[in-house]
Amino acid sequence: MIFSVEELKRFTKEVFLKIGCPESEAIQATEVLVSADLRGVDSHGVARLSGYILLNEKNRLNSKPNIKTVHKTQSTAVVDGDLGLGLVVGPHAMRLAIKKAKEVGSGWVAVKNSNHYGIAGYHAMMALEEDCIGISLTNASPLVSPTFSRERLLGTNPISIAIPTGSQPPFVLDMATTTAANGKLEVLQRKGQDAPYGWLQDKEGNITTDTGGLMNGGAMRPLGGDRVHGSHKGYALGAVVDILSAILSGANYGPWVPPFVGFIDPAPDPVGEGLGHFFGAMRIDAFRDGDEFKSHMDNWIGRFRQSEIVEGAEKVLIPGDPEREMTEERLKNGIDLLDPVVDDLTKLGRKLGVPLRSIL
Amino acid sequence: MIFSVEELKRFTKEVFLKIGCPESEAIQATEVLVSADLRGVDSHGVARLSGYILLNEKNRLNSKPNIKTVHKTQSTAVVDGDLGLGLVVGPHAMRLAIKKAKEVGSGWVAVKNSNHYGIAGYHAMMALEEDCIGISLTNASPLVSPTFSRERLLGTNPISIAIPTGSQPPFVLDMATTTAANGKLEVLQRKGQDAPYGWLQDKEGNITTDTGGLMNGGAMRPLGGDRVHGSHKGYALGAVVDILSAILSGANYGPWVPPFVGFIDPAPDPVGEGLGHFFGAMRIDAFRDGDEFKSHMDNWIGRFRQSEIVEGAEKVLIPGDPEREMTEERLKNGIDLLDPVVDDLTKLGRKLGVPLRSIL
Repeated sequence: MIFSVEELKRFTKEVFLKIGCPESEAIQATEVLVSADLRGVDSHGVARLSGYILLNEKNRLNSKPNIKTVHKTQSTAVVDGDLGLGLVVGPHAMRLAIKKAKEVGSGWVAVKNSNHYGIAGYHAMMALEEDCIGISLTNASPLVSPTFSRERLLGTNPISIAIPTGSQPPFVLDMATTTAANGKLEVLQRKGQDAPYGWLQDKEGNITTDTGGLMNGGAMRPLGGDRVHGSHKGYALGAVVDILSAILSGANYGPWVPPFVGFIDPAPDPVGEGLGHFFGAMRIDAFRDGDEFKSHMDNWIGRFRQSEIVEGAEKVLIPGDPEREMTEERLKNGIDLLDPVVDDLTKLGRKLGVPLRSIL
Repeated sequence: MIFSVEELKRFTKEVFLKIGCPESEAIQATEVLVSADLRGVDSHGVARLSGYILLNEKNRLNSKPNIKTVHKTQSTAVVDGDLGLGLVVGPHAMRLAIKKAKEVGSGWVAVKNSNHYGIAGYHAMMALEEDCIGISLTNASPLVSPTFSRERLLGTNPISIAIPTGSQPPFVLDMATTTAANGKLEVLQRKGQDAPYGWLQDKEGNITTDTGGLMNGGAMRPLGGDRVHGSHKGYALGAVVDILSAILSGANYGPWVPPFVGFIDPAPDPVGEGLGHFFGAMRIDAFRDGDEFKSHMDNWIGRFRQSEIVEGAEKVLIPGDPEREMTEERLKNGIDLLDPVVDDLTKLGRKLGVPLRSIL
């Protein structure tokens, strides 16, 4: 069923208001959440809205957080999210990183006591309009096994890096440190299709193509898939994301990260507070003239776009291209939500007294 | 043939002195180069020594560089390496990053006009003794094709991140952003063995297992191997390394990076100066109490080491484990160099009047 972007924003904002978020924070959280649907990362958009509400019901989320800076230097800080929505805590911390970049060239902010912050890319891209390079990392519910392990010890721990350009659209890397994003797996599950070799392992830790394996005690595999194809690199990158997000800040890490789904209880022996993020901002003119930087970025992108391609391929993509094309398409034609998502949102809306209206 | 670490250091230092390096720089360059042999990254150690000397003969290397900071803020800087050895320019820039971290919490230094800097890990690990997290990136000779491309547009562009610990050995990620490091490929070539699927492509851009393919116009593939296994992620990471190392600093990027091998001329239309690096240092106590941080790092590492393993595997490794074990072994038993490397060094030594002595 198709919804306009405005309608999804109206609905989402009203839901956040109903659970007690202040208006400006409901608007902020809505912007982050719906940006995922716009960019085609459907697994991180309104499909997750009822998940946040369930966390609130379980008292694992604070809709009126008192977000505080608890440690700082001129270029760094640690922010305590007071168990607020990551959708609100994340942009707060990213703004602080950008402020520090304006003052001393770069800013680096680790966050504890937060919750799921939506897509990593939203936060990194906040830096672009300030002529900064933006960096956004977060840890997440344990779903991934390190190379040689049969336990779930890491989340899909994404990395996003956004880099300003001149006439070209910005360069935006936004990737899970697993072979495939969880959202792609969910699509295969719904279609009853197998997963490619290297995406998943079963509960013994052996590679499986059965997407049901994840539910039965299996795990996702780090980028690389297996040892010979470099899964130790994906594992190490996911580990760095975990450490910068949570050990620098004082959040939970590894298998102690509180699960996003409200019906699974967090570990009884937490090693920190909530989950953790890490943000960075570097002013481009803290390194060289901003226009010079941008003109070389345009040249870089232009050269890569003109690359000779493999037979059968369409073109060489620049990180951020697919999401930007999706955004243009969805702003024009609306967002087509899957039936289970529409049902879930309708049910949520009824419970809270917020009607959901499709545009067709 | 087996050599003691001391003998390789003596030989290497004398060679650098012969081409005119000041004594302190010859010592520094030697430390970086031989650290690769000690850590088992044989492709980046003394096996490359004659390559540096050839660059010097071709006037593409300056043995007495005047290394200067050409742009700075409180937390950032750009360093002009004056075409010096990356083995000298790199540590200079990393020391500057650490100095800034001491002053304002973090320091970020981009470098232009440099040369190959040895293993990325050496520079990142310099931060450890200062209780800083160290980050080291560099671009490199174009050998890698972006996803869907048949051209070599990126280097193996490594990422190293070193993180301090308490009683556990430090966490040290040091990885190429390709499926496999070039060194592993060279081993297979020497043995006449095939490369695993996903490491290489031929000149048409199709995946090949023929290690000779690289010589015949083929290319290495980004981490992930192919699109379905996430090669667009490896490509995007390699791209970020290129941009931070070279577009922030004003060095050459992408296909314009000057090749390490002296017998291939650099591109006739450079877009910057020399090749580029990027270094970062963050003081751990710029975020939280240093002892607290270290005790949680120990806990993280301990938990991952105790992980249940897949049948047939030995243990879950922590990034840095294999290189540290290799270092212990080689400090004790010496370094076994392959015959072609010994021949190459002997020839180099004869030319420069520096004898090479094995310990057996």
